[in-house]
Amino acid sequence: MLNVAVIGLGRLGRWHVMNLQKIKYINIITVCDYSLEVARAVATESGIPHFTNNVDEIMNNEQVQAVVIVTSTNSHYEIILKAIAAKKAIFVEKPLTIDMKESLLINKEIEKSGVFCQVGFMRRFDHDYVEAKRMIEEGAIGKPLYFKGISRDPVAPDLSYIPHSGGLYIDLCIHDYDLARFLMGTEVQAVSAFGCNIKYPEFAQYGDIDQGFTHLQFVSGAAGDIEGSRCAYYGYDIRTEIIGSEGTLLIGSTKKSNVNILTKQGNMHEIIPAFPQRFETAYVNELSAFAEAVMNGALSPVTVEDSIKALQIAYTATASFKEQGKIMTIGH
Amino acid sequence: MLNVAVIGLGRLGRWHVMNLQKIKYINIITVCDYSLEVARAVATESGIPHFTNNVDEIMNNEQVQAVVIVTSTNSHYEIILKAIAAKKAIFVEKPLTIDMKESLLINKEIEKSGVFCQVGFMRRFDHDYVEAKRMIEEGAIGKPLYFKGISRDPVAPDLSYIPHSGGLYIDLCIHDYDLARFLMGTEVQAVSAFGCNIKYPEFAQYGDIDQGFTHLQFVSGAAGDIEGSRCAYYGYDIRTEIIGSEGTLLIGSTKKSNVNILTKQGNMHEIIPAFPQRFETAYVNELSAFAEAVMNGALSPVTVEDSIKALQIAYTATASFKEQGKIMTIGH
Amino acid sequence: MLNVAVIGLGRLGRWHVMNLQKIKYINIITVCDYSLEVARAVATESGIPHFTNNVDEIMNNEQVQAVVIVTSTNSHYEIILKAIAAKKAIFVEKPLTIDMKESLLINKEIEKSGVFCQVGFMRRFDHDYVEAKRMIEEGAIGKPLYFKGISRDPVAPDLSYIPHSGGLYIDLCIHDYDLARFLMGTEVQAVSAFGCNIKYPEFAQYGDIDQGFTHLQFVSGAAGDIEGSRCAYYGYDIRTEIIGSEGTLLIGSTKKSNVNILTKQGNMHEIIPAFPQRFETAYVNELSAFAEAVMNGALSPVTVEDSIKALQIAYTATASFKEQGKIMTIGH
Amino acid sequence: MLNVAVIGLGRLGRWHVMNLQKIKYINIITVCDYSLEVARAVATESGIPHFTNNVDEIMNNEQVQAVVIVTSTNSHYEIILKAIAAKKAIFVEKPLTIDMKESLLINKEIEKSGVFCQVGFMRRFDHDYVEAKRMIEEGAIGKPLYFKGISRDPVAPDLSYIPHSGGLYIDLCIHDYDLARFLMGTEVQAVSAFGCNIKYPEFAQYGDIDQGFTHLQFVSGAAGDIEGSRCAYYGYDIRTEIIGSEGTLLIGSTKKSNVNILTKQGNMHEIIPAFPQRFETAYVNELSAFAEAVMNGALSPVTVEDSIKALQIAYTATASFKEQGKIMTIGH
Repeated sequence: MLNVAVIGLGRLGRWHVMNLQKIKYINIITVCDYSLEVARAVATESGIPHFTNNVDEIMNNEQVQAVVIVTSTNSHYEIILKAIAAKKAIFVEKPLTIDMKESLLINKEIEKSGVFCQVGFMRRFDHDYVEAKRMIEEGAIGKPLYFKGISRDPVAPDLSYIPHSGGLYIDLCIHDYDLARFLMGTEVQAVSAFGCNIKYPEFAQYGDIDQGFTHLQFVSGAAGDIEGSRCAYYGYDIRTEIIGSEGTLLIGSTKKSNVNILTKQGNMHEIIPAFPQRFETAYVNELSAFAEAVMNGALSPVTVEDSIKALQIAYTATASFKEQGKIMTIGH
Repeated sequence: MLNVAVIGLGRLGRWHVMNLQKIKYINIITVCDYSLEVARAVATESGIPHFTNNVDEIMNNEQVQAVVIVTSTNSHYEIILKAIAAKKAIFVEKPLTIDMKESLLINKEIEKSGVFCQVGFMRRFDHDYVEAKRMIEEGAIGKPLYFKGISRDPVAPDLSYIPHSGGLYIDLCIHDYDLARFLMGTEVQAVSAFGCNIKYPEFAQYGDIDQGFTHLQFVSGAAGDIEGSRCAYYGYDIRTEIIGSEGTLLIGSTKKSNVNILTKQGNMHEIIPAFPQRFETAYVNELSAFAEAVMNGALSPVTVEDSIKALQIAYTATASFKEQGKIMTIGH
Repeated sequence: MLNVAVIGLGRLGRWHVMNLQKIKYINIITVCDYSLEVARAVATESGIPHFTNNVDEIMNNEQVQAVVIVTSTNSHYEIILKAIAAKKAIFVEKPLTIDMKESLLINKEIEKSGVFCQVGFMRRFDHDYVEAKRMIEEGAIGKPLYFKGISRDPVAPDLSYIPHSGGLYIDLCIHDYDLARFLMGTEVQAVSAFGCNIKYPEFAQYGDIDQGFTHLQFVSGAAGDIEGSRCAYYGYDIRTEIIGSEGTLLIGSTKKSNVNILTKQGNMHEIIPAFPQRFETAYVNELSAFAEAVMNGALSPVTVEDSIKALQIAYTATASFKEQGKIMTIGH
Repeated sequence: MLNVAVIGLGRLGRWHVMNLQKIKYINIITVCDYSLEVARAVATESGIPHFTNNVDEIMNNEQVQAVVIVTSTNSHYEIILKAIAAKKAIFVEKPLTIDMKESLLINKEIEKSGVFCQVGFMRRFDHDYVEAKRMIEEGAIGKPLYFKGISRDPVAPDLSYIPHSGGLYIDLCIHDYDLARFLMGTEVQAVSAFGCNIKYPEFAQYGDIDQGFTHLQFVSGAAGDIEGSRCAYYGYDIRTEIIGSEGTLLIGSTKKSNVNILTKQGNMHEIIPAFPQRFETAYVNELSAFAEAVMNGALSPVTVEDSIKALQIAYTATASFKEQGKIMTIGH
């Protein structure tokens, strides 16, 4: 059994608590939120024996073997450093940080300390992407030549979220940058990015966009394009494609269920409304993989370095966007 | 060039005229309808040099090499016999007749005279069924073991049509009986049939039903089931399935076009509304095959015997239905 | 928390153990198998504090509030009666029994004692069927007029299983009989059944078939047809259709994942291989629903009566099959 | 009836001859090819009364009302000017020319003379795009916000074709530029383009690529992205998407037929191999629309101006590609 503390009990934090309780070798022994009331409520309703609003109490608790950090992004840096100092295994929600310097410092500390740290790129644990990865590694499509990613949210976040989000490339497209590295098996070496405000003109005041596009060049000679959108009125739509020298993979579906209704209007199925429905199982799987890796002393399946690589692409895309799509290279 | 006369200029007759004009080696030299006005109108608007309301005039016209008979079913028998006597190649809309004795007499005359006669089971000329037939013959699914047919009309014909239609098995299911023989490559040896009135109770007064079901046993040991329905509120829905020892074929689609619309309600495509849209190309192809076979002196691709075999199954199904689904065998 | 004992630790029993451990308010306190070795192994690997090979020990254990019975079908009757006597809430794998008299006696005891009993028709807890049921209840398709069920297994069970299976209608088609009642919202009043041996001629020696067909008439005037097959070489294929007066539902998919591979051969997706993959979540959901209902004192979501109704249809189908498809009515 | 001459009898020219003969109010009275042998052969096998290898003979033939020009692109300019001088209605295969100056001169002459001229952007006549256009105009998706185009060829043309093709943007992507204007109902005002050689490195010697990407900005504020590829090993794959403010359209399918084969490997359908299969009907429809428009004195459904607008986008994309994706604007 792995004794776990969950830090941060917002919507996603409570979701992680629920998922951790489905994994038989995980034992949540304490939860933490800056609001003691929230921490108490979650502990009570979930049958967790302890709660606190003091992160240091978690770090000093010798029974806690691992921490799951789901606080707001700007507090990740500080809490992670504390967890490293306390030698707790770390699961941290994506993004690690949106500040590249902080990310690099964390990486240094992780390398020095040998502490386990996994970043929450949950798509890698989605059944469909796991299958796709397996097929590519088995050579089913030959050599990967082109990556095509579409990530569309049904609505944009509140305007208040925008100034601190890092912008579309860092907040949304980063999932596709990570998938691109994961599935193509090569690094991105150059990026161009474009974007515009087709549905939310009000984002422009913060330099942000609602529809963004990134063109990728990979070290291997492969290329790719990624569309990130806040404008998919109809639902949550995530599609990925890998063109290979001998075949192509199409990953994804908009189907909420395998029920089609046929009426005079047509043949219809409902569409997945948002990310929790699409990646429901992936969220459980990433935590299960976390527990297994920690308990077996295995390497982290999504490292701090993975997180940094994706952030680099997102930073470079943001910079390219600001210079009208200028091609910008990424050093490795 | 093949000189053709079209006899019968109702909706389907005019449709055949239009289709014949798309085939480059066919020349419609005259049209015939019991209404001279209709015949004149069709000839005028289609640029056909001659018209008549007299079938005998057609038969005596030495330039006419082939007749396309699209009159009401009850007049087929007489016109076909005249065409045989006049040595015209014959294309006759399905069903040949709904009277088994007439069908057998026609068959006798055809055999005696050697006149070419093709019956309008157009599904055999549909692209999808042609592909399916090819795949089966290439061994793609091994030995065919089970036939599953669904044929659903969006609405029933007018009540006035029902008493003379022959009933659901003869009027509607006969297409699937023909497909079953065509695709399974074996004869039907026993039949059970059931039916009911789920949407049109008024058909019961004529002993007819709106939802029918046939269970088939084939000489090869294979089996099958066929659903015929007048109750598909949503559109025209034709699906066929062949389970084989090493694979299965699924044939058909409800898609009116390859356009999907995604809205808050869901992901939708329009449904094929009725048979002319579903079998648009098949109707051209069967006439093109007719012309080619006649001109090349080839055998008829859909013989009078094929028509009789399908009618036998339909008759037996009708009889089985009247005896509460009793299994009835068919002699060969 | 609900304290549960699992009785029977074959493949499905161990699967239930695993699923029960994913449900946070369930506590497995003991497991039982006729092999003490097996019971010990499961308890050890699953962290369960107690095990036994003695059913009576379970029944006498006052801490056990509920039993999950996954033994071979022929032992259900005896164990259920013991559980009723011991006032344990009961979850019993389907079929309740394949002996109608035993089923009726169990029902009597359940009614007398008021003990909670849920039968494992897991399809009712599958996401797709839950959605379909909701849509029907919301009136999305008007009045249900026709039920169409297809259940195809990729291979037949071993020949040794056949003599004690009850035959195809009772062993396989019973799932569709239950779905038909569940989704149509009306009882079956008459049945005809046909069948044959298209792939496993050796089943005939036990009077069993590998391809069966049932035609259903419902009290409401609706009708239906059900195909049960052991011959789907390609995978596990479960499809259900409800034709309504204003729309139709198509439920099911053969997709193992939402990954399509496009090569020179074509556009392909892998097919669900067998029932555990298809109904993975449904198996968890039914146990979760069981625990919730027991803890809340709610009614059983799948009653002994439901089980008896489905068994009646299966019995009647078997009888009809033996009399060449004779229509047989079911009293209610 | 419209009397037509076909000029240029290569593969596509002979295809047009065949299609023209399916249209009842078209009469091909002569054909022309620089090889008299080819012209003779086509006339003979297609039953066309006259042939020549002299374009001027066609232009001087007073019976010829319309010319269908299917010669190699570099001869279009000269033949079109002759046809304008001879007052023949013109159908010219795409591209009009790949030289912008020639295109503009043709446009001037067309405007001056009032001669009818239609350019062969056949996708506009494809059933699916016609339906999509209708839906957009009916307001089904609200205001069009984003255009996404994918055009993938299964293989690249021979290396010998590349130097004179104009390059990927002009030769291949131009179809999507035309679709973008057609479906979005607004002009493109700025373009960025990227490309690379992922499968055909040998194209680089001519400055050409096998995988190209264009980012579009529309006058309306909408945006878009277009992928053009020579690398779709698996088949011919054309997909188009229009995201609107209230819905999205997905247009296209890779299905060669509506036959799926299910085997142990999976559920598969064959893929459309190349453009003639995908746009078979569109090629007939565009000629039918041509004849109708000419005979009715209607405006051309695809004008020289349409051709110029698409060519402008393609030119600008080519220029942007050469300057590393610099955003370049288009004047209107």
